Amino acid sequence: MIANTPQPPYYAVIFTSERTEIEQGYAETAERMVELASEQPGFLGVESARNDIGITVSYWKDLESVKNWKMNAEHTLAREKGRTDWYKAFKVRIAKVERDYDFTK
Amino acid sequence: MIANTPQPPYYAVIFTSERTEIEQGYAETAERMVELASEQPGFLGVESARNDIGITVSYWKDLESVKNWKMNAEHTLAREKGRTDWYKAFKVRIAKVERDYDFTK
Repeated sequence: MIANTPQPPYYAVIFTSERTEIEQGYAETAERMVELASEQPGFLGVESARNDIGITVSYWKDLESVKNWKMNAEHTLAREKGRTDWYKAFKVRIAKVERDYDFTK
Repeated sequence: MIANTPQPPYYAVIFTSERTEIEQGYAETAERMVELASEQPGFLGVESARNDIGITVSYWKDLESVKNWKMNAEHTLAREKGRTDWYKAFKVRIAKVERDYDFTK
């Protein structure tokens, strides 16, 4: 689903990743992280797609919400598991959305 | 591939889309747009993934490069075809990347 974000400005965290072949715990944790993120103050939405690489973009009200989510204890544990088990490589970009527009048929 | 972008700041154009069932011309045009974008001044890289939705993030040196790419004639024709044929819905977000970090095994 395309996230139904409010008028800019707001923040986007672009997480791009290459997976290892380890599946153990991955799908459950990914699902749990979406659920947990969506309970955090300032969460605005998330979009995710994967084939050769994965791209997950989460949207946040401001930098403080981004930082609080990064410090969340359960999320921190999941990120450690990501480094040891699930990801070969990833890149995280924190970006301020200045403009947006959309199209629907 | 994870795009090998330079130190921030730079710009990200996050294009999230839902496809129609029309395949005619889509794959060739998508490929051609990546090729064409990568020849534009200020282009820094692109990342793309699709399953339920598609997410393509292109990276640009500054807002002027983003605007020039939007005005490119061949790109404009492709976008028109996108609205009539290939996309049910899409959202475009223009965002300034302020920070990034990465991980490689």
